[in-house]
Amino acid sequence: MMHVPLTVGSMLEHAEKFFAKKQVISQTHDKLHHFNYGEIGQRTRRLMSVLDELGAKKGDRIGTLAWNHHRHLEVYFAAPGIGAVLHTINIRLAPEHIIYIINHAEDKILFIDEDILPLIEKIQGHLKTVEAFVVMTDKDEKPKSSLKPLYSYEELLHTGDPSYSFNTDIDENDPAGMCYTSATTGKPKSVIYSHRGIVLHSYALGLADSAAISESDVAMPVVPQFHVNAWGIPFACTWFGSTMVMPGPRFTPKRLAEFIERFNVTITAGVPTIWLGLLRELEQGNYNTSSLRAVLCGGSAAPLGLIKAFEQKYNIPFYHAYGATETTPLATVSRLKSYQQELTEDEKLEERSRQGILVPGLEMKIIGSDGEVAWNDEEMGELLLRGHWIADEYYKDDRSENAFVDGWFHTGDVVTVDEEGTIKIVDRTNDLIKSGGEWISSVDLENAIMAHEAVFEASVIAIPDAEWQERPVACVVLNEGFSENDMKDKILEFLRPQFAKFWLPDDVLFFDEIPKTSVGKFLKRQLREDVKAHYNLQS
Amino acid sequence: MMHVPLTVGSMLEHAEKFFAKKQVISQTHDKLHHFNYGEIGQRTRRLMSVLDELGAKKGDRIGTLAWNHHRHLEVYFAAPGIGAVLHTINIRLAPEHIIYIINHAEDKILFIDEDILPLIEKIQGHLKTVEAFVVMTDKDEKPKSSLKPLYSYEELLHTGDPSYSFNTDIDENDPAGMCYTSATTGKPKSVIYSHRGIVLHSYALGLADSAAISESDVAMPVVPQFHVNAWGIPFACTWFGSTMVMPGPRFTPKRLAEFIERFNVTITAGVPTIWLGLLRELEQGNYNTSSLRAVLCGGSAAPLGLIKAFEQKYNIPFYHAYGATETTPLATVSRLKSYQQELTEDEKLEERSRQGILVPGLEMKIIGSDGEVAWNDEEMGELLLRGHWIADEYYKDDRSENAFVDGWFHTGDVVTVDEEGTIKIVDRTNDLIKSGGEWISSVDLENAIMAHEAVFEASVIAIPDAEWQERPVACVVLNEGFSENDMKDKILEFLRPQFAKFWLPDDVLFFDEIPKTSVGKFLKRQLREDVKAHYNLQS
Repeated sequence: MMHVPLTVGSMLEHAEKFFAKKQVISQTHDKLHHFNYGEIGQRTRRLMSVLDELGAKKGDRIGTLAWNHHRHLEVYFAAPGIGAVLHTINIRLAPEHIIYIINHAEDKILFIDEDILPLIEKIQGHLKTVEAFVVMTDKDEKPKSSLKPLYSYEELLHTGDPSYSFNTDIDENDPAGMCYTSATTGKPKSVIYSHRGIVLHSYALGLADSAAISESDVAMPVVPQFHVNAWGIPFACTWFGSTMVMPGPRFTPKRLAEFIERFNVTITAGVPTIWLGLLRELEQGNYNTSSLRAVLCGGSAAPLGLIKAFEQKYNIPFYHAYGATETTPLATVSRLKSYQQELTEDEKLEERSRQGILVPGLEMKIIGSDGEVAWNDEEMGELLLRGHWIADEYYKDDRSENAFVDGWFHTGDVVTVDEEGTIKIVDRTNDLIKSGGEWISSVDLENAIMAHEAVFEASVIAIPDAEWQERPVACVVLNEGFSENDMKDKILEFLRPQFAKFWLPDDVLFFDEIPKTSVGKFLKRQLREDVKAHYNLQS
Repeated sequence: MMHVPLTVGSMLEHAEKFFAKKQVISQTHDKLHHFNYGEIGQRTRRLMSVLDELGAKKGDRIGTLAWNHHRHLEVYFAAPGIGAVLHTINIRLAPEHIIYIINHAEDKILFIDEDILPLIEKIQGHLKTVEAFVVMTDKDEKPKSSLKPLYSYEELLHTGDPSYSFNTDIDENDPAGMCYTSATTGKPKSVIYSHRGIVLHSYALGLADSAAISESDVAMPVVPQFHVNAWGIPFACTWFGSTMVMPGPRFTPKRLAEFIERFNVTITAGVPTIWLGLLRELEQGNYNTSSLRAVLCGGSAAPLGLIKAFEQKYNIPFYHAYGATETTPLATVSRLKSYQQELTEDEKLEERSRQGILVPGLEMKIIGSDGEVAWNDEEMGELLLRGHWIADEYYKDDRSENAFVDGWFHTGDVVTVDEEGTIKIVDRTNDLIKSGGEWISSVDLENAIMAHEAVFEASVIAIPDAEWQERPVACVVLNEGFSENDMKDKILEFLRPQFAKFWLPDDVLFFDEIPKTSVGKFLKRQLREDVKAHYNLQS
């Protein structure tokens, strides 16, 4: 059998040949662009020649600080296309973390959106390896900036070679991308994505039983391109010739709803926070969302009420998926098996609110206190993953040795698994609450509380307890129109029939918002501090 | 990124874990079996331990002479599962070719269906490497036979170890399977399928835009398991947890129609001859075929009339695919792109009757007399393929050097390609007709003739001509109820508006049947002899 390397560049080449007329619709700061894959291909080739001119070599890291748009997509293919490494940087991180990341990755060139220039100008003095800054702007004039040397993306492209070739001297295990993820403690840590990993992950996204990404799709990745390559969707959509809609900088729920209607979006992907926002927008406006065949939701567990609202109120199929930065990220997708169609509507919803089963190409083990847990949906254990697009280390980071052990990635997620092999995340290893020697799942409590009509968001954390070691406390944001009066009792009353008595939170606190990470997950570390302050407990 | 090898065994392991309840329904000589993937997994593990006991080592070739059923499926996974090579043998070949194949592959063990025993008994004396024969029978008693040593499959399985492990010492580039294909001249020639090639090909079969094989499918591979691994469908269906229906030995169109209705078959695959037969059966009987979402047709070009009948008369979506033994086999699938939905019904049908566009993971070149042809649907050239599941040589065979050149497989198929990248096979390099210095496509003429209501099948060949070098002659089988009277003139009249005058056949001859290869393709070599005999021409 021929051994042809699995490369990122080959995916765009396929699109150039077979989907040259299909479009990428891209919102930037100043306007809405329409490019087809033929043009994206030529622009990417120009960009590759530009990278070459700027001195980028095989293995060099090329950083991006950018929103979701066509230029970011072009860097997605141009950097790995010359054999360099696409390094997407989370623009929402604290400046000191961004400094750390750029220096740790040793980025040689940075591609920066216009509105992010001020951030980089402030930290420029700390950047040790960057040799060139490229601003991605629509304007003819290069913006004034203290960054040096600063180039304009379009001016560079103008000088580029539209017939420049993809580097053919690439081994499929060579690095193609990298992404840093926040750690519970310490600096961000990074994984490397290989060409092989990205291509195999793209196959997985095209499978009928995962995301089924197809030429006929109009795909809008809402999850940021700086977050695990927008879940790999831009790669898969390009390869399979889907129309892509890039929502651009600082989008609002209103823009998302409008784009869905205007461009007949068929599939979109993002974290629960985004969909809570979109839901509010759909309730206020009058949008036609009938084109949507799938909303993919991951990043953190979607409350049952969210799934229900999309499916039952708006008739929008809503799919729960699970993954992590270390898993490229797609690991599981929640879909009913054919024989589960016979379940009641409630049972189906319950089943679909789980994280689902493994995508073909991955293996899992769930390790409890006594080794592998039974598939009985009761025993809890940490989820371990192995497979073609699972990282095997953190890039130049000692923390690798705790997370990657004997060929398995330890996710830090605590799950149960039912006899169908469907996993359900019950907590982070760090977020489980241990009360009187028994485990309490904060996620189970959160989901139950969020099913209450008055509740917009809820997060449950442990507070220290002299008698029980730890006790759960619920932190709740109410929906508009509901008052805190009696609400604590009402919520506890609502939970009582659903849980053992010792699971019920000792208290319900009300907040205007729950602190979140830059990718929309509950920031429990911060919340714990806030709650401790509330009780005057020592940190 | 972890480097986990892509192995055939891992696909069955996935099914054992996540699709243990899903079924394989299997027709054997004596009865209809129902096994689930949990049981298939255990039986395969037993079989691996049996192979081990019988002395099969890594790299050894394990031959099968069998129809489509669950036991054959088990050998599909057990042979590569221990690191050996699954060698499926075409039972329809001439005995001298079967002898050649078994000796050339150096098969160590042969798995044989009961009704094929007599064939092997006759040639046993010529087999140089076979150490054990295993008969796949439902009967308790082992059939009487001169083969020695002869084992009974179920008796062996009874002694096997149901918890035997898949060999983990497998490199993904190790051979997993092999298949011989008939050559125009000379002995059959073989290609080797690697673990990697089979797994990546299986991903391709699961893509939404190729066969979209899914857990919710009930798949009936009609194409024989001895022909390019039944197009890889048993591997993909197992991995993705589809219900499988194996139609067993010597099936009739009636059995196929009954199985489609009885088991709610959603997808099936085979050569045009099979579908012509099924069509006749559907016309005579009264079957519910509404479960079918796809009939995949490949092996040779499907006449437009066939596609039309399935789609318009029976509302069964009919997909043209193209491949070869050397391509594992899926290379192209014919589906409309989203914007082609705007074509007229006739244009759509015409487009869908083409062979389609390349499956992601492959590359093509089309080489005419002046290098790569333009994508204008006019220039003809030979199709060259490259990619993850394309063979790179014939196994121990000098003919490799003509077919595999500079990293490309030369298919021997002459195609045109339109601006969408959709190929259309116009001939075999050997079957093109050269008349007065111009090329005439025999396939174009055949398809046009087969669109005539009176015609069941048609094959067009070249006969030598003193003036024009070669001239086309049409060989036609009429549908029942049509007479040969005037039919020559009617057919030529029918063709006249569709072709340049010099394309029109010089003669139309009527046959009771067209000679075919063992896999249902027109045997033009034989037909040329028959026609020459008819005209008293020298061979």
